[in-house]
Amino acid sequence: MSEQLESYLSGRWLRGEGVETKLTDPVKGDELATVSAKGLDLESALDYARAKGQGALRAMSYGERAKLVGAVADVLAANRARYEAIAIANSGNTKLDAAIDIDGGIGTLKYYARLGQGLGDARMLLDEKPVRLAKAENFQALHLMLPRRGAAIHINAFNFPSWGLWEKAAVSLLAGVPVFAKPASSTALLAHAMVKDVIAANVLPDGALNLLCGSAGDLLSHLTSDDVVAFTGSADTARSIRGHANVVARSVPVNIEADSINAALLAPGEAVGSPSFDAFVREVTREMTVKAGQKCTAIRRVFAPAAIADAVAEALAAKLKSTKVGDPREEATRMGPLVTRGQQRAAFDGIRRLAGEAATVCGGADAPSLDGIDREKSAFVAPTLLKLNDASSAKAVHEVEVFGPCATVGAYRDEAEACALITRGGGSLVASVYGEDRDFLARVVSDVGPSHGRILAVDPSIASAHTGHGIVMPQCNHGGPGRAGAGEELGGLNGLRLYHQRLAVQGSTDLLASLQSKTAALH
Amino acid sequence: MSEQLESYLSGRWLRGEGVETKLTDPVKGDELATVSAKGLDLESALDYARAKGQGALRAMSYGERAKLVGAVADVLAANRARYEAIAIANSGNTKLDAAIDIDGGIGTLKYYARLGQGLGDARMLLDEKPVRLAKAENFQALHLMLPRRGAAIHINAFNFPSWGLWEKAAVSLLAGVPVFAKPASSTALLAHAMVKDVIAANVLPDGALNLLCGSAGDLLSHLTSDDVVAFTGSADTARSIRGHANVVARSVPVNIEADSINAALLAPGEAVGSPSFDAFVREVTREMTVKAGQKCTAIRRVFAPAAIADAVAEALAAKLKSTKVGDPREEATRMGPLVTRGQQRAAFDGIRRLAGEAATVCGGADAPSLDGIDREKSAFVAPTLLKLNDASSAKAVHEVEVFGPCATVGAYRDEAEACALITRGGGSLVASVYGEDRDFLARVVSDVGPSHGRILAVDPSIASAHTGHGIVMPQCNHGGPGRAGAGEELGGLNGLRLYHQRLAVQGSTDLLASLQSKTAALH
Repeated sequence: MSEQLESYLSGRWLRGEGVETKLTDPVKGDELATVSAKGLDLESALDYARAKGQGALRAMSYGERAKLVGAVADVLAANRARYEAIAIANSGNTKLDAAIDIDGGIGTLKYYARLGQGLGDARMLLDEKPVRLAKAENFQALHLMLPRRGAAIHINAFNFPSWGLWEKAAVSLLAGVPVFAKPASSTALLAHAMVKDVIAANVLPDGALNLLCGSAGDLLSHLTSDDVVAFTGSADTARSIRGHANVVARSVPVNIEADSINAALLAPGEAVGSPSFDAFVREVTREMTVKAGQKCTAIRRVFAPAAIADAVAEALAAKLKSTKVGDPREEATRMGPLVTRGQQRAAFDGIRRLAGEAATVCGGADAPSLDGIDREKSAFVAPTLLKLNDASSAKAVHEVEVFGPCATVGAYRDEAEACALITRGGGSLVASVYGEDRDFLARVVSDVGPSHGRILAVDPSIASAHTGHGIVMPQCNHGGPGRAGAGEELGGLNGLRLYHQRLAVQGSTDLLASLQSKTAALH
Repeated sequence: MSEQLESYLSGRWLRGEGVETKLTDPVKGDELATVSAKGLDLESALDYARAKGQGALRAMSYGERAKLVGAVADVLAANRARYEAIAIANSGNTKLDAAIDIDGGIGTLKYYARLGQGLGDARMLLDEKPVRLAKAENFQALHLMLPRRGAAIHINAFNFPSWGLWEKAAVSLLAGVPVFAKPASSTALLAHAMVKDVIAANVLPDGALNLLCGSAGDLLSHLTSDDVVAFTGSADTARSIRGHANVVARSVPVNIEADSINAALLAPGEAVGSPSFDAFVREVTREMTVKAGQKCTAIRRVFAPAAIADAVAEALAAKLKSTKVGDPREEATRMGPLVTRGQQRAAFDGIRRLAGEAATVCGGADAPSLDGIDREKSAFVAPTLLKLNDASSAKAVHEVEVFGPCATVGAYRDEAEACALITRGGGSLVASVYGEDRDFLARVVSDVGPSHGRILAVDPSIASAHTGHGIVMPQCNHGGPGRAGAGEELGGLNGLRLYHQRLAVQGSTDLLASLQSKTAALH
């Protein structure tokens, strides 16, 4: 029998009944642990988080809470060595994949610890300075942001057990809202180990950090209008959260980051081998293979001018075929498996749907044969590239997301078609565009911008300096409209908005001056 | 047979089949008009608004669209004389009530016309200036707000057929998003007359202003992720919109302003007859009687120190009893009827529920006898004041909203109980607090602020200068958490957010400088 991961609720480590999910090694198939939240009293756990956690955090300034966030980062940094092995075993991560997840989480905590320090002694944020409302000059209004008085339900995705947990927790704790985190069961081992270390280090007030390992059960039924939900994951689960009767009835704020069908675009006029061509091919390959393509921001659709679309596909295929796939414990491996055999099945289903309208250039919907790997126990998907004959008449490529190392190349005739193709994704987290012509880049930003939460525009001057299409920087907005869930996370201090209530205060200029003196500026 | 109000869709005035709702005079009971949207092709109408209306508005700068908003205001101002009679006949408004609705609408349009002028030639807004992301100084990110590419569905409430229509339209048109407005059927006469004038004056591009008179039918099923919904009305309808399958599936942004159980608080230590006592009694009376209490921002709960709660109730009752209720066409009338007999019935139901835990000080759940008014045809409710024995143990007063001239007085023992009572409303649009002690006012703002969208704090220096508890100023945030719907409208330029997509652009400093030069600052 493997260990059952306990939940940390109401100030104690608690064990659920039975087994809801088994956690396995996606290379070897071994069972690593189990989770179950059956029988846990989630209503009391939420009350505890609100009373103890929020009560304690509310008594602190932003600056004091920033120190807590920094202390969490320090605990994780001190224990980092153990985390990599867990990420390799439970998620099939390569060392690079694990670093993105683990160091991404620690880095985001550190970023918000620094940012929060700048807010100092303030206990509320100033959104807009006083404005006059009437003839009398001494009657005005100012706009504050006040921390919410409930708990933050963080429902995280399986692909970033560390980063997903800490990027949300950093912002929430800084805002003074206790964290009630539910990691995805299949990869909960890392989140569990990290939270265990943070709790053991005793750096946070009682009730400020809560962990639910297992299914969410009736959690959403116990939320109040003081609480807030931040979810990252599939569009289907997003729907069930946003449409949940109690969430709707109480207007609980819900922030959603759902998978989206992100695009990359090579500008017209770029020749094979130009700096932008090379930057484009390099970035698409990286996005397809890092974390075996299991990033909500990964490139799924690749658009190139008709004249060189074949050359783009060939260049990509060459790089993909030479990517060493295998057990991430081996030094030479560049790409590991998907996290579970269920995810592998879903990816193969998706590839088959795409193959109904696109030609397979490399890879495909069969488990690859790999030295020393049992195809019946592992969850590998070969890097898979498809190519469309006619991108505009295609349907599945704009609708089906393969959450794995797979992308589809499409050719476009002109700028208008290129932009129309990108927005066919129905709302995406991110798009990237590569080219030398800055006017073209600016036009694409304006044109497809309303369908995105982020756009990376790569001209040759930053071809080697940019942070990447798929990497979410804490300084930048993360979220996109429509299919991507219409959320907004991170983005510096803007990330705090979800955890605050906007308030207009109308009063005498004396009163407003006194309130303003206790604030820090949001902008 | 009275006139059927036509809808303005797809660039034409269109008539629905049959009769869905009859519009009546709530004083005399006469039928004034009918509405029906049965059989209208709403899917095509939405397409038309997106293609024609959004297409035309997108080609303009904020400054150009601000001129359109100003032109709408001018058309309405020129035709104002006719609107008052409509408001009196269809809504039972007094002249003052009608002015709040009509001039409030025109004033908000003018406010946004002025504000938009300041945005000049820009076609997008700058949310945050460039920030560095990596070691390389020439790779940075800036945050833009880009107008959405769909239509704005504005579903308005019966109590403000003019203001509700134009406060939403002003912001939406300035943002470049065409208006698809659905007035509440029972009082649609004024909205219909105003839109008719604006369309006839030909001051807006084709498709920029659309009016649906009648029921919404399958409208929400045809929305895409480019569209946006702004709703004002009951919590029940809000639930059905927010939980609508297509709205949820496409992450259509939804802004909700729902009725809430707003509170007014008199500070401890205020004596009977003090400036704050008088300001408090004056404002509560005004809020209860203006528009016969049919404002989503009206005061429903009145909290006073235990020592003078009886005196507060007596002072309010004296003023309420002397309020002349009757036909608003008569000069002496200070308060008219509710808008329909259905609303009257609902108000009486609510009063009866409150009376189960509170004593009736004046008014009650029976139609008042009024000279020359037929009780069987009219919709009057007498100004009704109730008083609780124990505000903290009461339940209904914190949960039941009587949408009419009714409020309940409760006594509190200390500051902590006062704040706890206010937040029992479960999230409100607005609270107001009256007192001489500015430290007390500031503490109440911090304490109950997270449960509100706006707080009016009245000290004696602004007792006669403030704009009122219930009046929504376009400079100030309108909306509140929880029961109030968790929306944010107006609030100056912040109101534009709903109609824009937030976008992080990562690129070279040269590209970002070029983009930034085309923006206007949001803050």
